Amino acid sequence: MNTRQSGAGFIVIDGVDGAGKGVQSRLLFDAMQAQGLEVILSREPGGSPGAEEIRRLIVAGDVEKWDSLTELLLIYAARRSHLVDTIWPALSAGKWVISDRFADSSRAFQGVAGDVGLEQVELVHHLVVGSFKPDLTLILDLDPAISLRRAQQRGGHEDRFEKKGLSYQEKVRGAFRMLALKSPQTHALIDASETVEQVQARIFDEIKKRLGIELNR
Amino acid sequence: MNTRQSGAGFIVIDGVDGAGKGVQSRLLFDAMQAQGLEVILSREPGGSPGAEEIRRLIVAGDVEKWDSLTELLLIYAARRSHLVDTIWPALSAGKWVISDRFADSSRAFQGVAGDVGLEQVELVHHLVVGSFKPDLTLILDLDPAISLRRAQQRGGHEDRFEKKGLSYQEKVRGAFRMLALKSPQTHALIDASETVEQVQARIFDEIKKRLGIELNR
Repeated sequence: MNTRQSGAGFIVIDGVDGAGKGVQSRLLFDAMQAQGLEVILSREPGGSPGAEEIRRLIVAGDVEKWDSLTELLLIYAARRSHLVDTIWPALSAGKWVISDRFADSSRAFQGVAGDVGLEQVELVHHLVVGSFKPDLTLILDLDPAISLRRAQQRGGHEDRFEKKGLSYQEKVRGAFRMLALKSPQTHALIDASETVEQVQARIFDEIKKRLGIELNR
Repeated sequence: MNTRQSGAGFIVIDGVDGAGKGVQSRLLFDAMQAQGLEVILSREPGGSPGAEEIRRLIVAGDVEKWDSLTELLLIYAARRSHLVDTIWPALSAGKWVISDRFADSSRAFQGVAGDVGLEQVELVHHLVVGSFKPDLTLILDLDPAISLRRAQQRGGHEDRFEKKGLSYQEKVRGAFRMLALKSPQTHALIDASETVEQVQARIFDEIKKRLGIELNR
């Protein structure tokens, strides 16, 4: 499925809620475009018309609306649609793809902090995604007490994940840290407690070091 | 998850489009109720509030809206919700459950006639459903040329599955026949080319023979 052109690559920004993934994805996208690179900005759950429809099912409603396995299947249905309709075609056309969240979110939220278990997540992941991997995953790391406060201030509404509370988010943070430290070749752990500009500088440093792309802020 | 009470059971009516599953499920439901049995009538995709929302994503839109693996994940997300919110609670409460379609539809449509492959379907099935099985699956068997005509006459609209055409439906029919013949202990193959009353009589005969329940027509 993925016939990636040389020069293109898949960058993921992932991490706990409220760590600034949306802002940093946009800043990275703008800087890559300014550099003349062909790049698309995407997000999960979502990123294709079908996946956005599935997203609406996942994020709306009660915390207890779906059991954790149903939620995992919906997330992977959305991910499959995102891959087939957006990510793989873009990489095949030689474009860069930046995604706000990808599979590490499933590993952290459903696999480690939820009750599905990491093994089941990896099983579904292998079936749906195969051996395809992001070239670089930037994990934004932040104390969940701070990130929850930021998330609440941001929009006034809490989504289903945010409603699950602080101890759940602490497990999620631990899982993201573990995922970053386990795969240092493909992952960078970014301290997201600093200002937007400082975090952006850290991310651009990693982009330069890992992918050889120099970006202007 | 499934703490089934003795006396309760799960009956599935499955088979090609237009074979009369809806009508026969309703007739069986009515007769079981008239017999004083506690019974619920359900259907797939759907059968719980969440699963009905997922159903709307699956049946609406173009044939090419979802790739076959995405469709399979959506169907199993709906099935999981149907099991967790409807089927398992009903069986635990000692009720009979009749479902218009269940997992054999995934095996036939996505596994055999679609391009996912039966092995992948069984893998997802095992993850989502485990070893839980219907007590009896009645497969309504009909030449797809007749069933497609019936389906088209019925509502004037064709759903996504019906749009896939005759040769696809022929593969589906073959798959359903294979599934019925492979598991004679739990499956009955019912000739659905006869009148509604004749098919109903064949089904009630099987219910008596297999489950020991005598029903009045």
